[in-house]
This record gives sequence, C-alpha cells and structure tokens, in this order.
Amino acid sequence: MNGQTAFPVPGVRLGIAAAGIKYAERDDLLLIELAEGGSCAGVFTRNAFCAAPVQLAKRHLQAGAPRYLLVNSGNANAGTGVQGMTDALRSCALVAQATGCEASQTLPFSTGVIGENLPMACFEAAIPKAQADLDENGWQRASRAIMTTDTRPKLISRQFQLDGETITVTGIAKGAGMIRPDMATMLAYLATDLAVQPALLQQCLEQAVHPSFNSISVDGDTSTNDACMLLASGVSPHAGVTDADSPAFNSLCEVVSEVCMELARELVRDAEGATKLVEILVSDAADEAEARQVAYTIAHSPLVKTALFASDPNWGRILAAVGRAGLQDLDIERIEIWLDDVCIVRDGERASDYTEEAGQRVMDQQEITIAVRLGRGAVESRVLTCDLSYDYVKINAEYRT
Amino acid sequence: MNGQTAFPVPGVRLGIAAAGIKYAERDDLLLIELAEGGSCAGVFTRNAFCAAPVQLAKRHLQAGAPRYLLVNSGNANAGTGVQGMTDALRSCALVAQATGCEASQTLPFSTGVIGENLPMACFEAAIPKAQADLDENGWQRASRAIMTTDTRPKLISRQFQLDGETITVTGIAKGAGMIRPDMATMLAYLATDLAVQPALLQQCLEQAVHPSFNSISVDGDTSTNDACMLLASGVSPHAGVTDADSPAFNSLCEVVSEVCMELARELVRDAEGATKLVEILVSDAADEAEARQVAYTIAHSPLVKTALFASDPNWGRILAAVGRAGLQDLDIERIEIWLDDVCIVRDGERASDYTEEAGQRVMDQQEITIAVRLGRGAVESRVLTCDLSYDYVKINAEYRT
Repeated sequence: MNGQTAFPVPGVRLGIAAAGIKYAERDDLLLIELAEGGSCAGVFTRNAFCAAPVQLAKRHLQAGAPRYLLVNSGNANAGTGVQGMTDALRSCALVAQATGCEASQTLPFSTGVIGENLPMACFEAAIPKAQADLDENGWQRASRAIMTTDTRPKLISRQFQLDGETITVTGIAKGAGMIRPDMATMLAYLATDLAVQPALLQQCLEQAVHPSFNSISVDGDTSTNDACMLLASGVSPHAGVTDADSPAFNSLCEVVSEVCMELARELVRDAEGATKLVEILVSDAADEAEARQVAYTIAHSPLVKTALFASDPNWGRILAAVGRAGLQDLDIERIEIWLDDVCIVRDGERASDYTEEAGQRVMDQQEITIAVRLGRGAVESRVLTCDLSYDYVKINAEYRT
Repeated sequence: MNGQTAFPVPGVRLGIAAAGIKYAERDDLLLIELAEGGSCAGVFTRNAFCAAPVQLAKRHLQAGAPRYLLVNSGNANAGTGVQGMTDALRSCALVAQATGCEASQTLPFSTGVIGENLPMACFEAAIPKAQADLDENGWQRASRAIMTTDTRPKLISRQFQLDGETITVTGIAKGAGMIRPDMATMLAYLATDLAVQPALLQQCLEQAVHPSFNSISVDGDTSTNDACMLLASGVSPHAGVTDADSPAFNSLCEVVSEVCMELARELVRDAEGATKLVEILVSDAADEAEARQVAYTIAHSPLVKTALFASDPNWGRILAAVGRAGLQDLDIERIEIWLDDVCIVRDGERASDYTEEAGQRVMDQQEITIAVRLGRGAVESRVLTCDLSYDYVKINAEYRT
C-alpha cells in the first residue's frame, strides 16, 4: 500500500504530530480539517461500552457544522467513565483554542488500550503542532499516525469525472484486532471535495459501509471505539449533490463503496497474524439475516480458521459450522459447499467428484472463497475474514493493545 | 484421573477391542451392554448436520428396549450421506449377530474425522472380540477407548446410600475439541444400577446436562456427533424410582448432576491446548437467555481467551465483550466485573480500588472465575471455558481430527 497514490482532497487538510501518548517519537495524533460549509457523515460502534470520544463525536456530529476530527492512537479512552468524558471534552477545547472554532465543532476519536486515562499533557503540547502542520498532502502520514498493531498503513484514493469536473475520494483506515465491526470499523476516514447535502452523505456512507466494513470479521470482537467518517468539503467547482436520484449521487456512492471495500479488504489482509484472505459467500438463502448468520458462524469458527492457516481442506469443519449456525428446518440434502471452483459437499455429503488434491490446490492459495448454497431462497451475502495463526495468539497474548 | 476408582455398575458390562479404525493396536471400539429390562435416556447434538449414527441412535432409542451401545473413535461417520447410514445400520446388525439381540436394540456412536466412510471390515472383525470381552470392570479401559485428541481419560464414579442399599453412578466422557455442546457433549456415558422409569431417567439426564455439558465451551464449535447417554440397569435390590417427587429421584438427580458436572470440568481442563479452567458467572440478569448470551460472548472472545493464556489482567477485553453481547438497553453504569474476589469494573469504569497487582494475582491462577453483574434482575448462569493457546492452533492446524 505504500506506493498507493494519495490524491489530495481540496478543502480537506491533515496535520500530524508525535504526541508521545504510548510511544515516544512516533506520529500518534492526527487533526483533520474540513473547509467551512462542508458536510460530514459518520457511523459508530454499537458496542454498549462505547468509548467517551465516540459518545462525544456522535453528539458533536448532531450539533452540526463539524470542522475538525481529532484522532489519537495508543489510548482508546474507553472504560474510563466520567474522567474519560472530561478528557474528551478537554481535547475538543484544545482544538478550539488552537484553531479558533467552537469546541463542539471538533469530533474526537481514540484507539489503543482500553481502561487508561488519556495523558492530557501530551494533547496540550501536540494539538498546536498538528494545527501548524495542516496540509492537503498529509494523507500518507495520516494513514501511519492512526496505526496501532497494524503492520502497514491502509490508504485508498480514487478520482472520477462528474459533469466535466474531476472529483476525488480518498480514505484511510486502521484495523488489526478486535475487529467485527457492527456499524463501521475502527477509524476509517474518507473525504471528497464534492458538495453533498448532509443527509445524502450519511446515506452514501451507510450504503458503502454495510457490504464493506460491516461485513468483515477478524475475531468476532466488536471494538468499543469503531467509527467511520465521510467528509465532503464542497470545494469542487461541481454544483454538488442534492438529490438521491441523481447520476452524481450514484457515481459518488459507487466510488465511496469501492474505497470502503478496498480499505476493508486491506484491514482483513493485515489482521493480526493473518496469512490468508477468505471470502465467505452464502447464497440461495431465504433472507439476508440467515445468510449472514451462516457466514459469520463459519468466519468465527476457530476450527475452520486453524484449518485455513494449515491450508488443510478439512471441509468437515465447514459443514459442522453450517450445521450449528442455528437455521430452523435446514434441509442438509439441499446444501452445497464450494472452495473456489471445487465442489466439496453436494446433497449434504461429500461430492462424488471431489478429490483431496483439488481441495488442496485451493487451500494452498492466499485468497480463498468458501461458498455455501443453502437452497432456501435467492438472497446472498458476503463476509470477509482471515485465518487463525500462531501469530494471532502471540500478538494478543504478549502485547496489551 | 487415572487413579479414579471406577465402581462397577451391576447390570452394565463393557467390552473393548482394538479395531484398527484409525490407528493400529489402539483400543478404539467399545460395546456397552445393559441388562434386560433396564432403561436408557439420551440427549443429542442439535447440529443440523448430525451424523448418521446420531440419527440412528435417536431412532433406536425411540423404538425402546435398547440393550447395547456401540462406540468407535477415529471416524465420526458424519457428512457421509446414504453410505453413512448404511454403515451405521450394518454396525448394529453386526452387534445383533454377535449377541443375539435385534439390530434396533443397538445404539451406535462414532467420533473422529468427519467425511470419511467407516471401515466396515474393522467392525466385522472387532465386534465379536468386544462382545467376548464384556465385563462389569471394563470402565477404565472404556474411558480410554473413546478418546481422540484427549490427553487423558475422563471417568467419575460415585456411590450413595438409598433406603439401605448402595447405589452406584459411574460415567465416562471424551472431549478435546469442537466443543460447545448444544444438547450434550460428544460421547458421555453414565450408568446406574437403580431401576428408573424411562421418562424419569430422561428428566434426570436433561436436568443434569443443562448446567454441566451444555454450559461448557472450548471453541464455540458444536460437534456433529454429540451424545450423552444415561443407563439404568435396575439390577439393584432397591425398589427403584417411579415418582418424580420421591426422595430417591432427588438423590439420583443430585449424584448424576455431580458426575456430569465433574466430567464436564474434566473436558474443559483437557481441552485442546488449554492451560486454564475459567468459570464465567453472569448474575443479576433479567433472564437466563441474556445471562448465557453475555457468558458465551466472553467465553468465545479470542481476545479474552488469549489474555487468559498470557495471564494478562486485560479487563478492557472483558468489558468490550460484555458491551458487544447484544443486550438491549444495557446500562453500563450498573455493571460490575470481578476476577475472583477482585472487583475490576464498577459503575461502568475501572473500580477505584483496583490495582494491577491484585488482577495479576488472580490471572496467575490455573482456575479463574470471571463474574459479571448486570444489574438487571435476579437470574444467574454459569459457563465453563478455557484459554486459547499456541497449542490449540498447533493441534488444529497440524492434525486432522
């Protein structure tokens, strides 16, 4: 991803600083500035223990007119009670001081260890530095500043033509562990220079998040700090989007969805300890809920995940996961299971033409699709996941993230 | 467990043979004989892909008058379709041939690899040997014959006095992986010499299974072959149990529950790669469903399990799991989380008197209780689980079980 071109988004500037929150001399504070009059959309974790910054970001988003997003890595400010909210409010006040905006115009975001108070002295010193650093070309450094156990930054940038104008959509994200987003995933920020009416921007983001960030799972653990934000600066000469039925809105949604999907894939590829990217496609379902239920049951099965790590075509474990997914009146004789183009189960038993060699060939790949046909309807759903390796255990047993 | 005394159960004989199903020269076939007139109760997996022997065992149990249980390790006869059912029927016919009973009086059980056909020649040769081996003192060898990746046999035996008679309850079980029983766990067999009316025997078993086998989880993966059977030979001189309100029924239920609970604890202790036995106690819940939902969310969290493996009091991961468990209107300010006698979270944030040293002291133990008080009602539920270690990944990545 390092070679990914980051098209700057006119009307959006990024400032980065090394605040020393967890590690010394590492960029860990990011300030994103949105041009006056721009709009902002966001989706947030559904974890009941949502962190103080998430609560405050939601409130400030409701208040309208957001101008700044403040992001720190190294400390999640979650499970910190009253002090956590005081610190989050104070961080917004510090941005107001440095920029001249209102405190309620800043949305705060934090990622890192749960249950420790924010080191506010670090914020006091670093926020003015980040403000002084604001630049439209800050995306690459920003993508690194928000990392925790990520091994590489995630940045996707696209341009498209709209009524003769070049429009940009650039996005960054961080992931690694505690990933089973239930609304959006931990810290993804996208921006465009197109003018978009706020309700439509929110609609565009929600549509894009469902099949991307909300359809990935590393370990089934939904973070307390998930958030995905989409900014629209409106600085483009284009007249902007005010109608959900317009071609302009469709074009924007398409590109935002693509950027979200690519970022989501990058999150799974760089998940803690992951060696494989696995797509679970459940089709012929009666409704989306049951398709996702089966997909997530497979995606969360430690036995399936360790078999994937071992490149072992141990399809009995996939079959057992489908069987325990809790679907009422599941007719196992109608079920098919495929590894890429190899049918392993047909009519509820091993396909007669299946060979271990064919299964092995697919399992040896770095990217694998497990497809399950339920034979109950016409709905399909996809979930992206990864394998479970020694390194996942190592990373989560040895380090407190 | 090797030193555990196995009291023989009058009216129940066990025969063991080395059939060579997966490994040569290892006991892997068990025949259990119940005295004529005895009764039999069973609970089975709810996995929709339940194996051929499970389907047949259920049918033969319904038919009444079971006399033999036939158990093999090394091959699960699951995901084997029509051939699987043919083989299971044939194995019952072989027992009928060797013993003179009807084929429908044998209940077959299999455990091991999924998706391979049973090697019937092994059964043909070994069943007569197992029949010839039938002995009331076979429990120790039987507990070894049913093992797969278990590192040690599980056997619990109790005697109690009832109206002047000594009554015995002896049970064996096997476990190791793919363990989140949803009805009973893979292969547990208990027997008593008391006479018990079949409906009451079933009630006794179901009561005992709920808080024991149905409240443990190693990896959230419900097996295709789970079964737990309780035999009552009625050979004891005691008049027997015919009334659910009798002191005799209460005494029996108490001892059967104790044996099930001890066997369940042994299964978790010897789970694949497990280094710790962890009890999750969720109390002050509005109902049992939500208590279990929270308990299983914690028990299945890879992040909580790796922290347990590392003896890291990383309580933020427990808090995050409670928060994502999906309870409606969860008031996080009423929640308490305890590690044994150490309160780590109170009023939704770190307890003011919590110290890392106190948390570390509990996490260093081999047996740990994680207690969550929801502040929503008066119901509690317990789930037993274990940690997630390198060895779990190793066992499931390197071997096809």
